[in-house]
Amino acid sequence: MPNSDLSFMHPYYMGAYAENDHVFEKILLEFLRDHAYWRRNFHPENRPPIPTNAPYREHFNEFLAQMQQELHTLSADLKKSVPFFSPRYMGHMAADLLLPGVLAQIMTILYNPNNVSDDAAPATLDKELEVGFQLARMFGYNIDDDREPNAWGHLTSGGTVANYEGVWNLRAVRCYPLALAEAAQALELTLPNVGPKRQPLGKYTKWELFNFSIRQTVLLMRECISHIKSNQNKKDFHTFTRKIMEESVAHLGMAGFFLKHPELKLPVLMVPVSAHYSWEKSMKILGLGSGNLVPVNTDGHMRMKMEHLEELLEDHYRRQIPVLGVVGVLGSTEFGSVDPINRIVEFRKKYFQKGFYFGVHVDAAWGGYMASLFRMPDGSFIPHDEIRSKFNYFPHEGTWLAFKAVAECDSVTVDPHKLGYLPFPCGAFVSRDSGVLDFISQKAAYVFDVKEDSTKLPVKKKLLSLGQYIMEGSKPGSAAAAAYVTHRCIPLHHDGFGQIMAQSMRACEYFFDKIQEVKKKLKGLVTITVPFPPDTNLICFAINPKNNTYLALMNHFSRKVFNNMKINPNQPLQAHDFFGSCTSLFKAGLETEEANRILSELGINPETFCEHVSDRTREADHIYVIRHTLMNPWLMYEDNGMNYIDRYCLFIERAIDKEMHRAIRRK
Amino acid sequence: MPNSDLSFMHPYYMGAYAENDHVFEKILLEFLRDHAYWRRNFHPENRPPIPTNAPYREHFNEFLAQMQQELHTLSADLKKSVPFFSPRYMGHMAADLLLPGVLAQIMTILYNPNNVSDDAAPATLDKELEVGFQLARMFGYNIDDDREPNAWGHLTSGGTVANYEGVWNLRAVRCYPLALAEAAQALELTLPNVGPKRQPLGKYTKWELFNFSIRQTVLLMRECISHIKSNQNKKDFHTFTRKIMEESVAHLGMAGFFLKHPELKLPVLMVPVSAHYSWEKSMKILGLGSGNLVPVNTDGHMRMKMEHLEELLEDHYRRQIPVLGVVGVLGSTEFGSVDPINRIVEFRKKYFQKGFYFGVHVDAAWGGYMASLFRMPDGSFIPHDEIRSKFNYFPHEGTWLAFKAVAECDSVTVDPHKLGYLPFPCGAFVSRDSGVLDFISQKAAYVFDVKEDSTKLPVKKKLLSLGQYIMEGSKPGSAAAAAYVTHRCIPLHHDGFGQIMAQSMRACEYFFDKIQEVKKKLKGLVTITVPFPPDTNLICFAINPKNNTYLALMNHFSRKVFNNMKINPNQPLQAHDFFGSCTSLFKAGLETEEANRILSELGINPETFCEHVSDRTREADHIYVIRHTLMNPWLMYEDNGMNYIDRYCLFIERAIDKEMHRAIRRK
Repeated sequence: MPNSDLSFMHPYYMGAYAENDHVFEKILLEFLRDHAYWRRNFHPENRPPIPTNAPYREHFNEFLAQMQQELHTLSADLKKSVPFFSPRYMGHMAADLLLPGVLAQIMTILYNPNNVSDDAAPATLDKELEVGFQLARMFGYNIDDDREPNAWGHLTSGGTVANYEGVWNLRAVRCYPLALAEAAQALELTLPNVGPKRQPLGKYTKWELFNFSIRQTVLLMRECISHIKSNQNKKDFHTFTRKIMEESVAHLGMAGFFLKHPELKLPVLMVPVSAHYSWEKSMKILGLGSGNLVPVNTDGHMRMKMEHLEELLEDHYRRQIPVLGVVGVLGSTEFGSVDPINRIVEFRKKYFQKGFYFGVHVDAAWGGYMASLFRMPDGSFIPHDEIRSKFNYFPHEGTWLAFKAVAECDSVTVDPHKLGYLPFPCGAFVSRDSGVLDFISQKAAYVFDVKEDSTKLPVKKKLLSLGQYIMEGSKPGSAAAAAYVTHRCIPLHHDGFGQIMAQSMRACEYFFDKIQEVKKKLKGLVTITVPFPPDTNLICFAINPKNNTYLALMNHFSRKVFNNMKINPNQPLQAHDFFGSCTSLFKAGLETEEANRILSELGINPETFCEHVSDRTREADHIYVIRHTLMNPWLMYEDNGMNYIDRYCLFIERAIDKEMHRAIRRK
Repeated sequence: MPNSDLSFMHPYYMGAYAENDHVFEKILLEFLRDHAYWRRNFHPENRPPIPTNAPYREHFNEFLAQMQQELHTLSADLKKSVPFFSPRYMGHMAADLLLPGVLAQIMTILYNPNNVSDDAAPATLDKELEVGFQLARMFGYNIDDDREPNAWGHLTSGGTVANYEGVWNLRAVRCYPLALAEAAQALELTLPNVGPKRQPLGKYTKWELFNFSIRQTVLLMRECISHIKSNQNKKDFHTFTRKIMEESVAHLGMAGFFLKHPELKLPVLMVPVSAHYSWEKSMKILGLGSGNLVPVNTDGHMRMKMEHLEELLEDHYRRQIPVLGVVGVLGSTEFGSVDPINRIVEFRKKYFQKGFYFGVHVDAAWGGYMASLFRMPDGSFIPHDEIRSKFNYFPHEGTWLAFKAVAECDSVTVDPHKLGYLPFPCGAFVSRDSGVLDFISQKAAYVFDVKEDSTKLPVKKKLLSLGQYIMEGSKPGSAAAAAYVTHRCIPLHHDGFGQIMAQSMRACEYFFDKIQEVKKKLKGLVTITVPFPPDTNLICFAINPKNNTYLALMNHFSRKVFNNMKINPNQPLQAHDFFGSCTSLFKAGLETEEANRILSELGINPETFCEHVSDRTREADHIYVIRHTLMNPWLMYEDNGMNYIDRYCLFIERAIDKEMHRAIRRK
């Protein structure tokens, strides 16, 4: 049962007490000097441009003095920072950083590579691609060039950009068959019988063309291109590929494209109401329109509600509204909940048989690294009961199935700067099918060269011009080095990263049990409820003063309690014992039944939970909850017979008690 | 005349020989330790979770050993890096890094702030906003809250994302009046007389509504919102603001919005053909369509051709095709050329009087920091003759006027990780009018709160939730610290950063003169030409073997010469004497007249310059040129009577000579 031997992590981090500061300093110095001497060994015959007497000049020292002054001020300001390193911090998704990552990042900064092409990053671009493969393997994707589909991945500035890329890639692929058909028709070209029905492209309806699967579209493109190549002369080939480009959604834009295809309704994207706000942003920015974002309700565990998804899919199918994709969340940012990815995949199979296709993107910005816990070093997926035997509650069977099903989804967002314990900026986008690259390439090289078919280039070769396939234009090689070295030292499987994840889960389970004890202990004073038992390592709870039935009052009281663990830049850090975060359950995002269950557990009158508040002293449009991310490696460290969760529980008891007495005094 | 005293820069960089390695090491160590003791001083009463005997355990040391092994491998790989630090590197836009920036970045990484909100970055978010103001001031924008428009800016992962934001912001503002009119009409609301004609909104045509200026739109929104607030009850206000949101382009998407307004043609964006490829990407990704990107020709200096711009504007005006914006490039990535921004601004004034408006965005990713050279510490813009007296050629009057006119443009892209000599990732977006924030906010807070009018909040307060106003979702506070400290130590005006820029310009002028000498010296062997005299610090030249008239042969020969200064990861760095970069002038991007001028200077038969090549041995669709970025601080450093440009000229002479003899031998 729960193993709380934390010794395996002792060398991983700098430590809450900076215990490993000497290790850090020694290694960093070594590589700083290594860098300095690299410079000296480039053309040692040249005289150094900065003369040795420079440091004796007034100006030189004045500048250094000023720089030090500014850095002292920065350092002083930084002391107001959030103490992510400490087990007393259980707030947002941040903790101490893994040593290999920080060291690799810092040493690479000195070389300053830009991973946008191998030209500017001869040493780090391949590391970024390798990180993509490491992550792909963790999710169960094939990365072998000999089999298709084979995956690829790259780093982004964060999960938000990776989410944008998920939508962008889907749009490019899904719109392609229509563009191809349009081009062929315009040029009166005869194409071979293609697609699922093995018939001329022109015989497919627009609805059918938009509902080709990703793989079907990849094959369709290759088939048509090679047909034209072998049957037409070079000029015709150019004309054709140029025409396809001109008919693409990238070229025409959303308005131009859909004006050209009025038979086709505007596509939607389905995401659970628990999804990150970047999904709404993605629809706005990509010009798809946030009004075409279809929210799927969540169930009593804050997981996507499958009945609702089915209802929505059925409705869209009947009304022939194309669905670009369905986004499943693997560890929601607010509650850590895990959507039933496997069920989404099942629905896709079912509807695809009816000629209704949608892409599946997994937003695993938070939970992605948890996949390491389920994957053996040999790549196999660990059976449920085997994992289950190592925890008290985790993983719920649905959670296990969800992680397993990621391998069948089209793309994944994952943030190494979250549960990968790496410094910012380090997000990642992983795609199952590198065939998609040909639809998003900025160069569309195949368009212009008959001889060299770039669609046949190996993925790694294509990606030497990484900038051609991604949204961003500059990319710190230092982030790639950080992720690469970290994954080499702590591999992305059960015996590597999985152990860090397991510790985090154990801490969460311990917290969950402990909060029940607090609940019992304080039942004369307040009612505490955990609205959703945690799927991963995030936990929320609500606190209502005894006998209060107004939601507004409960929220007010909870805010007062939370103030005891809130970042306050005007107070020295030391004035704080613990840090947490908070979130709200909004009326619009919660089904009435679930809301009533939670409110009834708390003893709150459900009528005070309103979408439009008229009496601010009693009603509220949200249920305020305290939220804790349990990712710090030292939460379970016992000091004088108590670990940090035990201490936290004492702290919250005192805080509640204090605020209750204050509230009574105010009355 | 040219002052080549480089001593002021001695303390700025680590140095080509890592001369300042001790300074770097000493300061870095100090702040590393400062960080470590910060950790220890948070709750010093707690026992350290990593026990003091941990380092004596086998597992601990095995992990450290493995980590060191991996870091050694990384360090070894990094030795293949491009030697950006060296004055022997004159390739892409990178050089040695400014010490204050590197130090600030590294020390901030340890605290790992995320600048998406002040919650996660209490110490660095305000620094990012301050960097925005510093850059805004450099461009001549007002940053005083008491006057409007007042500017704001923030950091991005690079210029590409900043460019996207330029388009995204313009789209949001320009489409707003239409959405507002639609909402008012649908709800049968009476609004006051507004806009330039002081008439009811419903009386404006759609063309007129789309051609409100940014400022007019900001005022329009405020006027209408406050009118409704004072005249309607709370519920009506909610209904109205919600309806505006529902009619917005963000909500409807590009297709939905323009389908609703069929009277309005799809808007275009005008960019010079010399613009970075991210502009095409921006149109694709934002769903505007790269087909709606209107390329403006360039003149004989690779600057936007004003006659062509005027022609295009006139044509779009006549055909009533809305122009979202015109992008002027301040230092093109390929040639460093500067578009006549002042003329673009003049055209805007002229057409705006006719009721035809367009935004102006300046892509100053490359040249932005050059603005520091023109700005006095007191904020005044330095007269042309005063600047001119300090250089041989620079700045051309048009260049000076262009820099001056940035203050009248709507937004700017600038890359601190280019001429700001800062590590990746550090791009920036600066906007002249913070009123735009209310159109791009994800929260649209004013929509839901009658009491608190968020449109009236001071900019700095709004931006505490920076993530609500930008594309990205995670942002390294370390980049903000780097830029902030650097700008504090080396201010963004003539006497600060301007001096670094001046040195770079002097190096470029020296190079320009020197290459003429090389040209004369080698005239019996090859013909050399500089197709465009440099506007900034980038220079290109073409080399044609004597008596050759075929473009394909010239390109082939130039490539051979270039191979002598090309990154080759298979060779040790030391095997290289100099590094350059290369680029191509494409047939499609060059006016015939200009092409003919260049080819005639080179003695090439213009008929061998074809868009579609049939004879690869003679014809080509591009003119291949060698390209040098002259930003390294030590280019003018003299060693044994020669500086690095002198040495380079000897090197290129030898390389040309060698390749000529090889070519002759092959014959």
